[in-house]
Amino acid sequence: MNVIPPRQGLDGGFVDRLRDLLSDRVADSMALREQHSHGEGVADAGLPDLVVFAERNEEVAAVLELCSRFNVPVVPFGAGSSVEGQVAAIRGGISLDLTGMNAILDVSAESLDCRVQAGVTREQLNHELRAQGLFFTVDPGADATIGGMAATRASGTNAVRYGTMRENVLGLTVVTPDGRIIRTGGRARKSSAGLDLTRLYVGSEGTLGIITEIQLRLQGLPEAVVAATCQFDQFEDAVGTVSAALQSGLRVARIELIDEVQMKACIGYSKLTGFAEKPTLFMEFHGSPNGVSEDLSNMEELALSFGAQDFLKAERPEARTRLWTARHNAYHATKWLCPGKNNMGTDACVPISEFAACIMETKEDILKSGMVAPIVGHVGDGNFHLGIMHDPADAEETARADELAARVSERAIRFGGTCSGEHGIGLHKMRFMEAEHGEALDVMRAIKAALDPLGIMNPGKMLPQGKGV
Amino acid sequence: MNVIPPRQGLDGGFVDRLRDLLSDRVADSMALREQHSHGEGVADAGLPDLVVFAERNEEVAAVLELCSRFNVPVVPFGAGSSVEGQVAAIRGGISLDLTGMNAILDVSAESLDCRVQAGVTREQLNHELRAQGLFFTVDPGADATIGGMAATRASGTNAVRYGTMRENVLGLTVVTPDGRIIRTGGRARKSSAGLDLTRLYVGSEGTLGIITEIQLRLQGLPEAVVAATCQFDQFEDAVGTVSAALQSGLRVARIELIDEVQMKACIGYSKLTGFAEKPTLFMEFHGSPNGVSEDLSNMEELALSFGAQDFLKAERPEARTRLWTARHNAYHATKWLCPGKNNMGTDACVPISEFAACIMETKEDILKSGMVAPIVGHVGDGNFHLGIMHDPADAEETARADELAARVSERAIRFGGTCSGEHGIGLHKMRFMEAEHGEALDVMRAIKAALDPLGIMNPGKMLPQGKGV
Repeated sequence: MNVIPPRQGLDGGFVDRLRDLLSDRVADSMALREQHSHGEGVADAGLPDLVVFAERNEEVAAVLELCSRFNVPVVPFGAGSSVEGQVAAIRGGISLDLTGMNAILDVSAESLDCRVQAGVTREQLNHELRAQGLFFTVDPGADATIGGMAATRASGTNAVRYGTMRENVLGLTVVTPDGRIIRTGGRARKSSAGLDLTRLYVGSEGTLGIITEIQLRLQGLPEAVVAATCQFDQFEDAVGTVSAALQSGLRVARIELIDEVQMKACIGYSKLTGFAEKPTLFMEFHGSPNGVSEDLSNMEELALSFGAQDFLKAERPEARTRLWTARHNAYHATKWLCPGKNNMGTDACVPISEFAACIMETKEDILKSGMVAPIVGHVGDGNFHLGIMHDPADAEETARADELAARVSERAIRFGGTCSGEHGIGLHKMRFMEAEHGEALDVMRAIKAALDPLGIMNPGKMLPQGKGV
Repeated sequence: MNVIPPRQGLDGGFVDRLRDLLSDRVADSMALREQHSHGEGVADAGLPDLVVFAERNEEVAAVLELCSRFNVPVVPFGAGSSVEGQVAAIRGGISLDLTGMNAILDVSAESLDCRVQAGVTREQLNHELRAQGLFFTVDPGADATIGGMAATRASGTNAVRYGTMRENVLGLTVVTPDGRIIRTGGRARKSSAGLDLTRLYVGSEGTLGIITEIQLRLQGLPEAVVAATCQFDQFEDAVGTVSAALQSGLRVARIELIDEVQMKACIGYSKLTGFAEKPTLFMEFHGSPNGVSEDLSNMEELALSFGAQDFLKAERPEARTRLWTARHNAYHATKWLCPGKNNMGTDACVPISEFAACIMETKEDILKSGMVAPIVGHVGDGNFHLGIMHDPADAEETARADELAARVSERAIRFGGTCSGEHGIGLHKMRFMEAEHGEALDVMRAIKAALDPLGIMNPGKMLPQGKGV
């Protein structure tokens, strides 16, 4: 390995002590540093001085205590699948890789919960749970680590029915910047005992401490699962169907809207035969056989009343897998559609009552911009994504992509929503925090200052600096 | 009115300025001060120097700014139905009564949400919503204010299906101790944009700021609602039925366990004819007619397999109302059962897998103690309540009641649960916070110090002082 000396400023004594703690699990190869310098998407990179692999809570604590002592920035790293620049080490320091903490510590089928280390991935967990008839519901698409999903308050296709990480994390083990190991929440389904630290750390993007263990709520595998699709000539009819379904309280486990541009990409990339390049809904229903069949027929009736063509059911597992694999590969499909271009992803979420107006205005904006920007969305929550295709070597096009993305964020806030439904803030969305939160930002800053007084935890992320700071 | 001069120490300048702001909405009558000195149950009282009635966000802000300037304690006050001493002004100062802020600001049937002022009560809100086919699900029994329910992270019978205040508050307006008006969260169903301040203030019991407005998630009134009851010879069979129902994922909107002592009280007080003095389950099922009928027959089969006697359905509204009224009046029924005695209520919540063992050990403890202490519980969440009957004039009996209550809290923590499922901490449960949270308490204290540096917000509550503080 090509050994790069620590950058100027990283104290030699710090590095020596770190190696005393973790010996060869302190890496300074450029390959590892580069790999840990960025997430997915077009996030800026920031090269860490060192990559450190921790395997136990006590090691994380010792590392953080050391970083506090030497004032060294720490950026937690999992699967590296975040998309807003969360893992870039923009001020150097160490990238703390938690993928070695990948043990499933405890599963209780009786309490429908489990405890896992932060580096366990979503697919690893679900593979383990399946044999016990259980599953963990939050599915952001990527095979992210549970620690990363907690840190970014991840969500995904199942959230409309089962909630996001906010609802599905019962408790945490967190290492504070000064190296204390604390436990938040617990295994009880509810508690009124003190401040809700669990929800404070969920979504804190590594800015307050390092999440090392997560107590998760689980669900029993549903007795019956049926997927369904329907296509529309008009985008607004697909949107109308979703709005009406939500307002009528129709029970759906997933409801995804895929516009005609994204469908073209999916059909081509995922060989999704039998579909037209039209706005499409992918849905899934969970429950008892009777319940699912009732939900399906209600949904079919509703979709047809909005002009849907052929409401198709996919009951066999392989038919469902084909649909959801195509959905999960939507990102790769856009790159197939526009060879040589990058996909600048952005997501937003608005109140259901504003969803139709907001997404139609967005659609019009895309058309006016002349960009290729497929829309997909977990629309059951009022959440949608744009993948704005652009040539990263073309500064003008990249700037236009960025402006379009910015308008999506600003529009969502204007419609009473949020600039990020599920990707988090990282670096890229800090500029919208003021518009979305106003003076509440000062409260967030006060909490940050109280819990990370040295400012070593993922510095420069999530919270824009205040005036005069 | 009998005007009591402000206690020594409450600055005359402060009182003058307060009257300038609110004129006759600053009260110092002993009757009002006494009424605002305590909640329900056996909570300690603490007499506020003044009772202040605010009607607008800006007034609350001005009052808090003044209290900060003069270092005067502030205790928010709603319906006064909290049971752990939350509203006692133990260090004097002002009781800030928010019941005049009782406007329902906005209801959206499309987004299934609403925004209300803190003084709106649960029943007031549901009365208003009914005409639109909507309801707000959180039902702690008492006709509490929504602000108080948010502040104590209230819960209740419907939580097993619809969640607690934690899941049903989308956003807040909060006035900070220095008099800034901030908004947290929003109307989007989910967001990953920054620290989750909403969940931080929910359950903070007035120790960080004053909640003045609440954005709530609503539900459509279910198409079909059927209640059901069944009785058991053995307490453990009732418990076993609940555990099995939860583990099998059976959909139930409410499932309440009422032991034979509480049933005796309910039968007598609420004229609940047709029931025996035996352990009983009260249940309710919400959904489509077919779905509810499927749920009912699954539940019936399960209950009968545990030896339940006659599984009775209550379909007509008046039959359901009779059951739930009796359940809501459980507290009053215990006072009827033990004339002259007080009910020391305590609640705890444990993981579902530990529920049977924990509640059976508790039952045995009650028998050994020789006290009358009926058990009722929102057992779908692993949450149960004891009402420990005691003569407040009998110091020895009161001490024994307190010891029994303490053992319930300690036992719940030992079983991996929490000392408070839904009542909060207030004064009475501060002594269990260390055992439940360990070093995480220091993080709570750091947040408290950061957001309320003068310590004027409901001082002396929820967070026990740290060592050396």
